[in-house]
Amino acid sequence: MTHGATVSRPYVHGRHPRESERLRDQAGTLIDLLHSDTQYPAGSQVLEAGCGVGAQTVTLAQRSPAARFVSMDISAESIVEARRVTQAAGLTNVQFQQADVFALPFADESFDHVFVCFLLEHLSRPAEALSGLKGVLRPGGTITVIEGDHGSTFFYPDSGAAHRAIQCQVELQRRAGGNALIGRQLYPLMVAAGFDGVRVSPRTAYADSGRPDLVDGLTRKTFTAMIEGIRTAAIEAGITDPDAFDAGIRDLYRAAEADGVFCYTFFKAVGTKRPRG
Amino acid sequence: MTHGATVSRPYVHGRHPRESERLRDQAGTLIDLLHSDTQYPAGSQVLEAGCGVGAQTVTLAQRSPAARFVSMDISAESIVEARRVTQAAGLTNVQFQQADVFALPFADESFDHVFVCFLLEHLSRPAEALSGLKGVLRPGGTITVIEGDHGSTFFYPDSGAAHRAIQCQVELQRRAGGNALIGRQLYPLMVAAGFDGVRVSPRTAYADSGRPDLVDGLTRKTFTAMIEGIRTAAIEAGITDPDAFDAGIRDLYRAAEADGVFCYTFFKAVGTKRPRG
Repeated sequence: MTHGATVSRPYVHGRHPRESERLRDQAGTLIDLLHSDTQYPAGSQVLEAGCGVGAQTVTLAQRSPAARFVSMDISAESIVEARRVTQAAGLTNVQFQQADVFALPFADESFDHVFVCFLLEHLSRPAEALSGLKGVLRPGGTITVIEGDHGSTFFYPDSGAAHRAIQCQVELQRRAGGNALIGRQLYPLMVAAGFDGVRVSPRTAYADSGRPDLVDGLTRKTFTAMIEGIRTAAIEAGITDPDAFDAGIRDLYRAAEADGVFCYTFFKAVGTKRPRG
Repeated sequence: MTHGATVSRPYVHGRHPRESERLRDQAGTLIDLLHSDTQYPAGSQVLEAGCGVGAQTVTLAQRSPAARFVSMDISAESIVEARRVTQAAGLTNVQFQQADVFALPFADESFDHVFVCFLLEHLSRPAEALSGLKGVLRPGGTITVIEGDHGSTFFYPDSGAAHRAIQCQVELQRRAGGNALIGRQLYPLMVAAGFDGVRVSPRTAYADSGRPDLVDGLTRKTFTAMIEGIRTAAIEAGITDPDAFDAGIRDLYRAAEADGVFCYTFFKAVGTKRPRG
């Protein structure tokens, strides 16, 4: 999870192929929960900031086939992959651009809408990023922000070891300048950035064995795989030791068994840039 | 919160007037979230087990005006209050009965549907209660169970003191034989009780200052008031001390300020008793 570092975005998902696969699994099982109420009108110009490997881009562009997207990421490598998957999906309404969200190479008020998903969690100055995005948004345009919150995670059977393993990820992300608990903070961040009419809704993903696809896609392949992926980094950082960490991972997989339950809450916020008047 | 004790239900909400008021506040703000998808057909006979002071009874009976409800509770005192509020609401489709969920005074298979809300959390043998309820349900009938989960609570700003204050309530409820984390466990409990087609959905209540009614109704008057209400019991039980507890309560109220956010997840489960054949 901690591949490379840049000044403005030191903590980046999705640089490696296996990681890309995980992020697409995630998008696959959670699409409806996160995206079903996002659709942009024909002809509108939409900026997707922090597109990563295109995990959300395909969904976005498919759901709004007559809108035009500019999808940007700070990682040129991620953009190569994002371009590949959108082309593979046959999409022609997406342009990609390598760019830093803290130094946007777009004219003021040049977008009708802005979309951000799983980006702010990686930034040390999320409020500043939102202000910059507000600058390139036209008055009356909307911004949509989706972020997770690792502190929302709980499961059955409960396990202190599993909570501590998750906490390792929170701590690593914090040390890298990010915030894995940012979901709960979207409302004050959006209001502080000056957006109007901010509405935040929780999107709780829930998996029990009555929904084996979600147990596999969410509990195992998305969340537990993500936590498992920081094992070496967390041990090397001295945040945990192998036995403690492995016990936590075991208990997360335990929550994917027949009587297990897993719960995680994302937040989706929509705000408007005040129209001139 | 810990008024009196009985063998089968040692931990009972709603015995005192102020507590009754709190429980009705709770029902008022959360009605749509919890109840909007529950409606019973005309003529059906529905058992509400553990009706308490009638906080859910009024909603249930209003939403299904042509169904007939038998609402039971182990507390005769609660039933007096529940009868009063349903009569005040002008409802004529509810009968009340004082009864123990572990010794149901009803004929086998005599109900078309069973409804349970905020009851299992108080029981030391929730699986046994579900089995008993299955006995009085006709084949093909449904059971609906709604429970909270205090371990689902999180807020902005985050606060260890507030989490520890909540944990006091979890611990008191545990010592009284209950389980304040039972929401996450509904799926395995319902499956173990032999219900078919069990579907559980999380119902996440979320409050930020864009929704002042919810900040007041949920964050302040329901959740924080409930935790605040166990102050003396928690201190007397030696689980906390006044300073630590009060710091936690202060931080919960902090989450109700202009930039604060509060989140709590209920679970609603619906299952069917297998039809004969």
